[in-house]
Formats: sequence, structure tokens, C-alpha cells
Amino acid sequence: MLHRLAVLILLSSACASLPVPALGRPQDRSAAESPKVAVQADGAVGVPAQTVPVSTFLSPEAKEYLAQHLKDMQDPEILKQDAGVPRFMKRYLARDYALFPVERKDEKVGGVHAYVYTPKAGVSARNKDRVLINLHGGGFSGCWPGCAELESIPVAALGKIEVVSIDYRESPEYKFPAASEDVASVYRELLKSHKSQDIGIYGCSAGGMQTAMSVAWFQTHSLPAPGAIGIFCASAGGVLGGDALYTAVPLGEARLALPGAPGAAPPLSYFSGTDPTDPLVSPINSPETLAKFPPTLIITGTRGFELSSALYTHEQLVKLGVEAELHVWEGLFHGFFYNADVPESRDAFNVIVKFFDRHLGG
Amino acid sequence: MLHRLAVLILLSSACASLPVPALGRPQDRSAAESPKVAVQADGAVGVPAQTVPVSTFLSPEAKEYLAQHLKDMQDPEILKQDAGVPRFMKRYLARDYALFPVERKDEKVGGVHAYVYTPKAGVSARNKDRVLINLHGGGFSGCWPGCAELESIPVAALGKIEVVSIDYRESPEYKFPAASEDVASVYRELLKSHKSQDIGIYGCSAGGMQTAMSVAWFQTHSLPAPGAIGIFCASAGGVLGGDALYTAVPLGEARLALPGAPGAAPPLSYFSGTDPTDPLVSPINSPETLAKFPPTLIITGTRGFELSSALYTHEQLVKLGVEAELHVWEGLFHGFFYNADVPESRDAFNVIVKFFDRHLGG
Repeated sequence: MLHRLAVLILLSSACASLPVPALGRPQDRSAAESPKVAVQADGAVGVPAQTVPVSTFLSPEAKEYLAQHLKDMQDPEILKQDAGVPRFMKRYLARDYALFPVERKDEKVGGVHAYVYTPKAGVSARNKDRVLINLHGGGFSGCWPGCAELESIPVAALGKIEVVSIDYRESPEYKFPAASEDVASVYRELLKSHKSQDIGIYGCSAGGMQTAMSVAWFQTHSLPAPGAIGIFCASAGGVLGGDALYTAVPLGEARLALPGAPGAAPPLSYFSGTDPTDPLVSPINSPETLAKFPPTLIITGTRGFELSSALYTHEQLVKLGVEAELHVWEGLFHGFFYNADVPESRDAFNVIVKFFDRHLGG
Repeated sequence: MLHRLAVLILLSSACASLPVPALGRPQDRSAAESPKVAVQADGAVGVPAQTVPVSTFLSPEAKEYLAQHLKDMQDPEILKQDAGVPRFMKRYLARDYALFPVERKDEKVGGVHAYVYTPKAGVSARNKDRVLINLHGGGFSGCWPGCAELESIPVAALGKIEVVSIDYRESPEYKFPAASEDVASVYRELLKSHKSQDIGIYGCSAGGMQTAMSVAWFQTHSLPAPGAIGIFCASAGGVLGGDALYTAVPLGEARLALPGAPGAAPPLSYFSGTDPTDPLVSPINSPETLAKFPPTLIITGTRGFELSSALYTHEQLVKLGVEAELHVWEGLFHGFFYNADVPESRDAFNVIVKFFDRHLGG
């Protein structure tokens, strides 16, 4: 008669013989020696201090990248932006220019400033009538053009597709719904020469949030849904919360979430004056809005602070019958694919390219 | 000129105004007061002790279930099995019998003992030529019929489909490849009356591992691939490792992984004498084997100790061009869907049913 502890021991012992590198086991074999996990009545878990190595599943390049990233996150100097490029991102940009030959035109599309990327090798025949809109990350307060470049260049080159990255209006000068208006202006312009099902929209972090907000915005502004969307490093409402606060934040950002209860922080100035229950601000709150989402690709990582809300978004879309595809990179953090030299980043770009290829019309 | 710390603060402040319940923020606003996260040269992270609440994204039922589960995992008495049913699972079984009317026949299929489930409401017209094979969890050393029942009854009833749950040979009396042989015997028998594309195979934990091992076994034993498979609470090789050791194990199993380095544990007696690099034992090691996998559904949770290896399995299948679908339940643990009263479990069963409906032939 085996109890589950023994089952766990046996199961994990089985796995000790399986080739997972640097395998550990979950059970506490020497209970008297190890620190304990305490469980409170409400299910809260007191977890003792731990030293957590980089994940054994990562490529060698990703392990090195993660180690560097964690050190960067603790260095205020390297986090600063110069002309819209965070310093730690400069080396990633230089590599993108070397790896992915693209043309970049500085234009206005529907009256909104944008960079229009096309691959130097040419747009593929399949993609001649298609276009992707990129909405860059940066907290609605920066990272143009740095994040725009890192999100657009590899996709344009690897996807052999045109990418329009929108320099949407942001804080501190502008407030919601400025970015939603700008995306709609560009979208309307593109609709003059493209079918809606041939247009995809995607972005990372703030850009992922804005992608979801734009889909909601189109619903209430007489615009058709795009053919497919990508919500990366983000969710359809709320980036933080859940288990990720305690797992991904320390392991991916090298800091603790604010200890104790969630408090009120002064609202981001971009969102000041907004109603948090408004589906145009936070589509996750409206099943009616979510149910009309087009096919949606969600990308995150076990160390992305958005992990929990991204997973919750995926669950809700699935429940509502939306075709939602989830990819979670083990051991990797918020926006990891900004470094294109890492194999896992290449895998992510391949997933993005294939997703849009499969779901856009034509 | 904003640095990323400010970006994070701003982003998280944005989210403080978004309706994610009990929202926290990742940044350390009062650095002098809070414990620090230490980053080592190799990227290992020293995480201070934390108290981690149940995830804010869970349904009320799931929060209660998680709290109870964590207490159960620390109670050796309730983990014991009586006649193949772990005591903590008895109430879940009683509910399954009440919720999901099925007929269960105790039979031999291809000479192997099995339970054959059919919904009392009848198999649907769509499913009349289809059958699912369930491989139960239990560490290759128990949990028949408890886990078999919990994995089969809801699927048979909700899916309106026949489910054959195999009582495969296990430790301590038998060793690898006894279970693989038994699955193959049943499969060969079903192939006399079903097309391979109309047969699906799925299981949780050891059953998920065995599902992957069986797909590999069929490849080297002149058997066609099944139409679709489900690897739940498991991976295609190795259940443990990665970030999950440090996140999911404490938060989902209320214990710490063995502190310090992974050590050698005596191999599970079921796998004694096996070669850990053998694709029949651990398909994850063989891209050639994995590349021939049929459409695969992977189900896990942020608190499942299999999380990291399940995600790695998904990434590898996707890279190899296999149609692999991932669902990760925020805040939930290994085998969470055994409790069918929890809304998230119903969502999981719906995902399973829809997946097989979409991918099986006919």
C-alpha cells in the first residue's frame, strides 16, 4: 500500500534514470535536515530561501544570456535609454542589423509616424497582399525605436513580410486612448489596400497589451477584426499577479515583488482617468469582447512576470471558443526573444512567422 | 530618459489600475526595507523566503481545492492507497460517479486486463468508430483503479466516447517494458476493429509518460501511430527538472526539492536495467522519434512539478513540426483535474474532448 509520498519518490527515482540533465527530485528525503515548507489555513505557502540555478533545459547560449540579463536588471545604468534605446538592448540591435537584412522606411501611415520594414530579399509571394502591424514594448512611455526595431526586424526578415511598426502616442505627453486611436488610424489606412484578414497585429509587453486593446477598440469603432494577433510578453488585461509575482519576478527580474499585500500604486500616467473595468482598457474583463477576438498567439516564459496573466488570458480565450495558441518558454524571461542570437529566440520567431502564415488570409 | 526599473514601475502601476484581483507589483519600491535577491556569476538566483498565496486568478472552488491539496500532501495517512485508491482521491471518485453516468465493463482486451467505459447516454454518432485508450497515473507502481477511474469517467461521459483504461503491468512485480508491451497488445486488438487514426491515447503522470513511450514503442514494433495523443501531468521523458523544481514543487506539493545538487536516487524498480538514452524509455532524447509523433495535447499547471519538462517537450515537438497544443493552468498542480467539481477541471476536460474530436479521424 503505497502512499503518495512514496509514489513521488518512486516517480522521481524513475526520472533519475531518465536523461534530464542535472535532475533533482521533489521529495524531501531527509526531512530532519531540510528546511520546511509551511502551509497556512488559506493555502498560502511559506517557502524557505532557495538558490535557484538557471534552468537545465536551456541552451548554453540562453543560460549565458539569462545570467547576463539578471545582472543587467540589477544595474540602473544599463537600464537607461539613450535616444529611445535601452543601453542593454544596443548589442541586440547591432546583431539584428547584421543578421536580418531589411529596408526601413520612415513614413507616416494614416497620419501616424511609423517605420515600415521590408526584407531585402523581398516579400514572399504568399505575403504579397499581407502586412503585419507591430506595436512596440516600453511601458507606454518609451523604447521607441529600440523595442520597435527588435520586434520588427527579425519578423520582417524571417517571415519575408512587410511590418509596419507604429510610433503610437504615449505618456507623459499623451494619455489613453491616444495609442488606440493611432493604431486605428494606421489600420484604416492599411484597409484601403489590404483585406482585414490579411492584416496581423502583434507586440511585446505594452505592445502586447495594446494589441489586445486595439482589437477591443476596433469592435466599438466599426472596424473589422484583423486576421490574427500576437500577444507577447503580456496579456489581455493586467500584466501582473498570480503565481508569477513570486516565481517569475525574482527569477526573471532579480527582484522581489512588493512584499505583503498588493497596494495601490499611482496609476501609470498613460492610463490616468481610465475605468479599469472598461473593456477598451482591459479586454480580459469582457467575455463578449474576448469572444470576438481573432486567432491569437500568446508567447511567454516561466520567468516572465506576465506569465500568470498570460496563461489566464489563454484559458479565457479558449473557453470562449477563440482559436488561441500558447507557447511558454521554460526558464526564460519577459521579452527574452529580443536577443536573436539565442536559439530559443529563433524558435520564438519561427513560431510567430508560422502562426501568421497559417492564420492570415490568402 | 527612463531606465527599465522605471519602465517596470510604470508598467506595473498601469496594471494597478487594471482589474486583476489582488494585484501586486514586481518592483522593489522600498529597496532599503525589503530582502534582496542575489544573483551569482553563473546566473543562480538567491531568493529570500516568501509567503505565496493561492493565485488570484483561481476560481473560489480551485482556491479551496488547492489549500486542501497542500494540506493533504503533508499528511502521510491520507496519501495511502486502499485497494488501489489513494485516500484523498476517494471523494473525487464519489463525485465522478454522481456527475458522469457511465457503464464500466471489466474485460480483457488483447489478453490484457482493462476497464471499458461507455457513456450511459450513449456514444455520439461522431464517435461511433473512435476509441480512446487511457493509461492511468500512479508512478508505475499503483493507483489502479483509482487514477484510471478519475482519468476515464469524465472523458467518456463528457466526450460521449468509449474509453479503454489499461491495467498495464507495473512495479514491483514487473519491469520495463511490460507496460509498453501491454499497451501494444491492447492497441493491436483495437486495430482489428478501428483505424489507427480513430484511436487516441492519453494519460496523466506515469500515464502521460507511458503515452509517449508507447508512441515510441509502436514505431519500432511495426505499429501505426495513433490519431492523436494526450501527455498530461508529464512529458516525453523526465518529469522533473528545470525551474519547476524550485517553484512548482514547493507551491504545488508543499515540500522542497532535495536541497543542493541533484543526487542519484536508486532507479525506480520499474525502470531498473534500462538505458536512459533509449528512446523507448525517454522519447525526448530522439528527435527522429519525436518528429513522428501524432498531434499531441500537453496539459500542465504552474504548480505541476512536471511543468518545465512538459514545456520543454512542447517546444521540441513544435520545432520538429509536430502539431502540439499546450495548455497550462495558472495556479494549479500535478493532476489537478482529478477533482471534477472545480471549474478549471471542467475546462481541462473540455479541452481534452475537443482536442480528440478535432484530431481523430472520421
